[in-house]
Amino acid sequence: MDIPTDIQHQQMGYDRTATMFTPEGHLLQVEYAEKAVRLGSSSIGMVCSDGVFIFSDKRNEDKLIVPSSANKIQEIDSHVIASIAGIVSDARILIDRAQLISQQHKVTYDSEIEIETVVKEISNIKQQFSQYGGARPFGVSLLFAGVYNKKPQLYTSYVTGNYFEYFANAIGENDEQIREKLKEKYKKDLTINKGVKIALDIFKEVQKEKFDIARFELGYLKKEDSKIIKIDGKNIENLKWLTQLRE
Amino acid sequence: MDIPTDIQHQQMGYDRTATMFTPEGHLLQVEYAEKAVRLGSSSIGMVCSDGVFIFSDKRNEDKLIVPSSANKIQEIDSHVIASIAGIVSDARILIDRAQLISQQHKVTYDSEIEIETVVKEISNIKQQFSQYGGARPFGVSLLFAGVYNKKPQLYTSYVTGNYFEYFANAIGENDEQIREKLKEKYKKDLTINKGVKIALDIFKEVQKEKFDIARFELGYLKKEDSKIIKIDGKNIENLKWLTQLRE
Amino acid sequence: MDIPTDIQHQQMGYDRTATMFTPEGHLLQVEYAEKAVRLGSSSIGMVCSDGVFIFSDKRNEDKLIVPSSANKIQEIDSHVIASIAGIVSDARILIDRAQLISQQHKVTYDSEIEIETVVKEISNIKQQFSQYGGARPFGVSLLFAGVYNKKPQLYTSYVTGNYFEYFANAIGENDEQIREKLKEKYKKDLTINKGVKIALDIFKEVQKEKFDIARFELGYLKKEDSKIIKIDGKNIENLKWLTQLRE
Amino acid sequence: MDIPTDIQHQQMGYDRTATMFTPEGHLLQVEYAEKAVRLGSSSIGMVCSDGVFIFSDKRNEDKLIVPSSANKIQEIDSHVIASIAGIVSDARILIDRAQLISQQHKVTYDSEIEIETVVKEISNIKQQFSQYGGARPFGVSLLFAGVYNKKPQLYTSYVTGNYFEYFANAIGENDEQIREKLKEKYKKDLTINKGVKIALDIFKEVQKEKFDIARFELGYLKKEDSKIIKIDGKNIENLKWLTQLRE
Amino acid sequence: MDIPTDIQHQQMGYDRTATMFTPEGHLLQVEYAEKAVRLGSSSIGMVCSDGVFIFSDKRNEDKLIVPSSANKIQEIDSHVIASIAGIVSDARILIDRAQLISQQHKVTYDSEIEIETVVKEISNIKQQFSQYGGARPFGVSLLFAGVYNKKPQLYTSYVTGNYFEYFANAIGENDEQIREKLKEKYKKDLTINKGVKIALDIFKEVQKEKFDIARFELGYLKKEDSKIIKIDGKNIENLKWLTQLRE
Amino acid sequence: MDIPTDIQHQQMGYDRTATMFTPEGHLLQVEYAEKAVRLGSSSIGMVCSDGVFIFSDKRNEDKLIVPSSANKIQEIDSHVIASIAGIVSDARILIDRAQLISQQHKVTYDSEIEIETVVKEISNIKQQFSQYGGARPFGVSLLFAGVYNKKPQLYTSYVTGNYFEYFANAIGENDEQIREKLKEKYKKDLTINKGVKIALDIFKEVQKEKFDIARFELGYLKKEDSKIIKIDGKNIENLKWLTQLRE
Amino acid sequence: MDIPTDIQHQQMGYDRTATMFTPEGHLLQVEYAEKAVRLGSSSIGMVCSDGVFIFSDKRNEDKLIVPSSANKIQEIDSHVIASIAGIVSDARILIDRAQLISQQHKVTYDSEIEIETVVKEISNIKQQFSQYGGARPFGVSLLFAGVYNKKPQLYTSYVTGNYFEYFANAIGENDEQIREKLKEKYKKDLTINKGVKIALDIFKEVQKEKFDIARFELGYLKKEDSKIIKIDGKNIENLKWLTQLRE
Repeated sequence: MDIPTDIQHQQMGYDRTATMFTPEGHLLQVEYAEKAVRLGSSSIGMVCSDGVFIFSDKRNEDKLIVPSSANKIQEIDSHVIASIAGIVSDARILIDRAQLISQQHKVTYDSEIEIETVVKEISNIKQQFSQYGGARPFGVSLLFAGVYNKKPQLYTSYVTGNYFEYFANAIGENDEQIREKLKEKYKKDLTINKGVKIALDIFKEVQKEKFDIARFELGYLKKEDSKIIKIDGKNIENLKWLTQLRE
Repeated sequence: MDIPTDIQHQQMGYDRTATMFTPEGHLLQVEYAEKAVRLGSSSIGMVCSDGVFIFSDKRNEDKLIVPSSANKIQEIDSHVIASIAGIVSDARILIDRAQLISQQHKVTYDSEIEIETVVKEISNIKQQFSQYGGARPFGVSLLFAGVYNKKPQLYTSYVTGNYFEYFANAIGENDEQIREKLKEKYKKDLTINKGVKIALDIFKEVQKEKFDIARFELGYLKKEDSKIIKIDGKNIENLKWLTQLRE
Repeated sequence: MDIPTDIQHQQMGYDRTATMFTPEGHLLQVEYAEKAVRLGSSSIGMVCSDGVFIFSDKRNEDKLIVPSSANKIQEIDSHVIASIAGIVSDARILIDRAQLISQQHKVTYDSEIEIETVVKEISNIKQQFSQYGGARPFGVSLLFAGVYNKKPQLYTSYVTGNYFEYFANAIGENDEQIREKLKEKYKKDLTINKGVKIALDIFKEVQKEKFDIARFELGYLKKEDSKIIKIDGKNIENLKWLTQLRE
Repeated sequence: MDIPTDIQHQQMGYDRTATMFTPEGHLLQVEYAEKAVRLGSSSIGMVCSDGVFIFSDKRNEDKLIVPSSANKIQEIDSHVIASIAGIVSDARILIDRAQLISQQHKVTYDSEIEIETVVKEISNIKQQFSQYGGARPFGVSLLFAGVYNKKPQLYTSYVTGNYFEYFANAIGENDEQIREKLKEKYKKDLTINKGVKIALDIFKEVQKEKFDIARFELGYLKKEDSKIIKIDGKNIENLKWLTQLRE
Repeated sequence: MDIPTDIQHQQMGYDRTATMFTPEGHLLQVEYAEKAVRLGSSSIGMVCSDGVFIFSDKRNEDKLIVPSSANKIQEIDSHVIASIAGIVSDARILIDRAQLISQQHKVTYDSEIEIETVVKEISNIKQQFSQYGGARPFGVSLLFAGVYNKKPQLYTSYVTGNYFEYFANAIGENDEQIREKLKEKYKKDLTINKGVKIALDIFKEVQKEKFDIARFELGYLKKEDSKIIKIDGKNIENLKWLTQLRE
Repeated sequence: MDIPTDIQHQQMGYDRTATMFTPEGHLLQVEYAEKAVRLGSSSIGMVCSDGVFIFSDKRNEDKLIVPSSANKIQEIDSHVIASIAGIVSDARILIDRAQLISQQHKVTYDSEIEIETVVKEISNIKQQFSQYGGARPFGVSLLFAGVYNKKPQLYTSYVTGNYFEYFANAIGENDEQIREKLKEKYKKDLTINKGVKIALDIFKEVQKEKFDIARFELGYLKKEDSKIIKIDGKNIENLKWLTQLRE
Repeated sequence: MDIPTDIQHQQMGYDRTATMFTPEGHLLQVEYAEKAVRLGSSSIGMVCSDGVFIFSDKRNEDKLIVPSSANKIQEIDSHVIASIAGIVSDARILIDRAQLISQQHKVTYDSEIEIETVVKEISNIKQQFSQYGGARPFGVSLLFAGVYNKKPQLYTSYVTGNYFEYFANAIGENDEQIREKLKEKYKKDLTINKGVKIALDIFKEVQKEKFDIARFELGYLKKEDSKIIKIDGKNIENLKWLTQLRE
């Protein structure tokens, strides 16, 4: 038989539900859902010496959409933001849930929630949808960035429900290529200013002539005050500090 | 193998339930439901300098139907209207739910509901029907238009449960073609008068000899008083202001 | 491939459950259920200047059945009647439900229920059976006729759960042909007398030599008193007013 | 394709569950269940001028069975009897339910239940099993006969859950043939004596040399006192009145 | 097509679940379960002038099994015994249930339960497993014998949930052949002594050289005192009365 | 068709769930589960004149496992032990349940539980998993041995949920061969000493050069005090009494 | 037929759900899940004379991940650690559960939980997911190590829900090869120092040029104080005692 293993597995039906392993121990529906994530637009997140930021391609080229409505960077709590790649409506359900978890924590304990706690609860939901039948996995990966106890943090939650803490990471289209570049350029002592410049350059390299700063969105929190700052489109390139950086 | 990917996926059965991803990360049942939306008659919505309107093709050529019974433009609350494209009975269930959500808000908080809140709850329901098994997705897209805090707003909720806020948008038959024209002609300083004229012209261009003003319906809310005004069929063309506009 | 799309879809299994869309966005099980409706005997309903009536072919040629037991025209409430086409036992379940809804309204509010309220609740049940798995759609369409607040009204609820208000309409066998004739002959100023005469003539034209007045049933409500009058078989033709009309 | 539609539908799987319509709007599992009914032995029921009776073929040729145990005519309440055709164990469940419904009515209202009320509730159960998945339809038809308010009545409840009131009717093996003969011979002024004679003759004609009075069972209620009288096997032919009738 | 109907139905899948009728109205899973019953060892039951007995082949040739543990004749209550054929573990569940029903009756009403009441409840359970999905039918038939109100009674409950009262009957292997012989030899005035002799002779005839009295078990109740007497293996042949009978 | 019945049944899918009978009345999934039992290591149980014992092959050749952790002989209660063959994790669930049942009995009635009561409850659980859908049968057989009221007893519970009391029995690999030897050698007046010797010899004969006393485990209870004694591996062969026996 | 049994079973569909046995008594979905475990990175656990340790390959070569976030060695309670191989998100769910069980025990009984109690509860959950339908088995094996009552202990819980106590064991990639080496080199009187050296050497042998101490993680508990000590990456090789050992 010369039929490639992929095709064989598809013909055998191993890829029809998230509740089935292939003979090699793979979960194909989960792997297909990861394809949906790679169809989404990209985000880069980075932990810097003075804070943490997410830099996202909104890929909204539709002039008819109100730009703020297509924001990729969402506030989870006053100290946490998130960006997503994949099925947008799936993501909204999880973002809403994350916001609810954070609010309930604040109301119950009168203090900010640990960022990992939010990430874990969202990831646990995703794990369940990769193990139980009767529903499909969530087709979405999320970058969570925040400052907790003066410590900037970045997490990524994947389709499987797996998550890790990162120094820097990318999700969505071309994620592998972007991550290679991040590995080369990332250093722990980068300031947000320098980090954003690097992210900007990576996007320019990867997207080439398709690159359009107007489609991008920046969200960051400084270690000192952990306040969320969001900057849209053209304003990013005109940022004083970013400009200063260039000079 | 020269069989087109579409046919291959159909033969593999990836399109038999909303709980299954294709190897490329697509949800075919959801995409098929979107076809049902495109089989529906079209509506154009537009945010204008002085308010917001929806202009809908009722496509009711059946003289035996009481015209008011085939209205496409529904009142969700005293400050929100909606139009639909797709499976009419599916739409009714969602419209009813939207009305209920609005009423409960009014009773509970003694104030008008934010338009996005309604849109989000309806879209969340749609997301669930695109993820869980045992039912099919809602085969319907909705345009929501309203004035909240003197601000005119227009939203579109899609089959996936995804939604965005728009300056102007179209759903149903020929939506892509109409949206192209909207992108050309839409400007933010248009008045409702001018906006309706543009929508009317677009429909004439797109439907050509099939165009019949008698089949149309207009609903609008002015920013100043946010009162819903609905005008049917022939009356639209005879509108003074619309006529005046032409002279 | 020259196999017709119909056959292709059947071979693909798109028509095996109401929870599946075809690649074109159709719900085949629902469409098949509509065939069950067209296998049923026909009814004509009409709103007249002085009231509303339903004129039904009971198609009961079985001399062994007690005629009253095969009545097609059912009383929903003291001001509403209904006739059905399709699977008779499905219809009974919905008719019972409609009666219950009406009684509960009367007991709760001490007033007659709005006709559309009944129609909507019944249609919502039908919509659910067209969206959720584990059951088949109701294979039945219903004509509801009544007088509410001195206003005669006629509704039709379809298999999908879709419904409209009509001036005049037909369900069951040959419905398209009958509706064509209704469009020609219906006028808003018809009296019940004249309307019934038109319905009678249409049935004669459509059924030709199969026509037998003995199989028919008439139910009407006059605007002034909204009392249900039902007349069976031969008595219809012998009706004074109908006879007078002919002279 | 020259394959007959029947075979085609079977190959397509339209007949695998009661929750599926064929492209022509049929419910094949329900139609197959009707075949189970026709495999059952026959009963004739008749409304007469002085009462109502059911005359049943018990088809019990098994000498080892205690005859009373194979009775086909069951008492539902003191004023109602029933006979069945089809799957005997299915029938017992419905007969038990009918008895329970009657008893509950008597206890609650201290009066006899209307016969149609029992018939309707049993038929509603049958309708549900023809619409919901996860179970098969009840493979049984029932004849209900009784006297309510001095009025003799006869009902038949079918596999679909459909039911009608009859002057005379037959269920089970050869039902169509028997019904043809009933249409010829039935008159409204027949006495029970004469009616039973007619039923007896019909069975002789239809069963020919297989006919054996010992296998039959008669149950009747007179209008005047509505008491259930049951007569078994040979005793039927020896009945004085039946004998007198012959002379 | 020359494929036999059996094979055709199997290929069509009509025999995959108890919830599916064949086009001829049969329930194949139930019929297959009946095969499991015929794989079980046989029992003969008989109503005699002075009581009732069950005579069972335990078919236990396994010297390692404690004989009392492989008893086929079980006590349901102080006045009822039962024997089974088919899947032994299925039978135990039903026997346990029968014992529970009897005990609950005794506790509640302080009197012995009617034998038919037990038989009916057990049979109703079996009917449900032949109609609902998600489980298989019980693969077991039961003979119930007892004395109630001085009246000896014998019942058989089948796989379908159908049951009858018998003068004499057999279940399990060769049941048809044994029943033929019972029809020849059974008379209502037989004493238990004579009845057991007949049953013994039938087993000898049917089992031929395989016959071994050591494998058999006898249970009987006399009309006068309704006490259960059980006799095992070799003791049966040595029974004084049975020996006397022979002389 | 020359395809063997086995293969035919597999191709027909009769072996895909425990809820399906084959046309011959077999439950293939249950029979396959019995194969899992035969893949397990063997145990011999025997009732002796002075008590009862279980002699088990632990088949644990893994030097890395703590021997006590791979014990096959489990204490169910202070007077009952059990050994298993088949899927070890399935067995643990049932053993836990058996321990719980025993403890609850002790707490409730302040007396030891009858051994058959435990065996029956465990076997009932197994029967359910052989009849209901949505789960697989337990792939495990159990030997229960104990002393109740000074009476030594041995039970075996099979995959079907069937169980018997035995004088001596074997489960697991080569069970049929071992049982043949037990039939030859077992006598009711054997002492535990002699019984264990016989079991040891049988294992030597059956396992031949693979036999290794270090892999075995012995558990016994003497009639007089019903205390559980367990002896592991090499210690068995060094047992004084066993050695004495040999001399 | 020359098709290998594996392929045959796959074509027959025996490997599509954990609720199905193959004709040989295997559970293929469970066996496939075990493949997922072997795709995971390896861990070695060992019981030593002075304590117990787990030595794990984190296989995290991703410089962008915060190392502590990719820790393989988790604290279950103050006296128990665990390492996993397989699907990381599945593992997290089980680890969380283990932590919860331990905490609840501490709160309820004010004492440390027995290590086997935790292992058993986690393994019971895994057994259920290997028997019930509607979900897939957990694709994860776990090593649990701890000190209870001054006694160092090591357990391994497998995909089936089976578990054993070990002197030394390995899970994940190359587990069989590592276990062979452990059997050769393990002795009960090894100190942690010497044990870690052995584990280190085994990993070097097995991973050859891929070996990189930076990817490893060590966790141990000394018998005397049962405190958890964790050492990461390069620090392991620089450990004084480990270095001393080398000299």
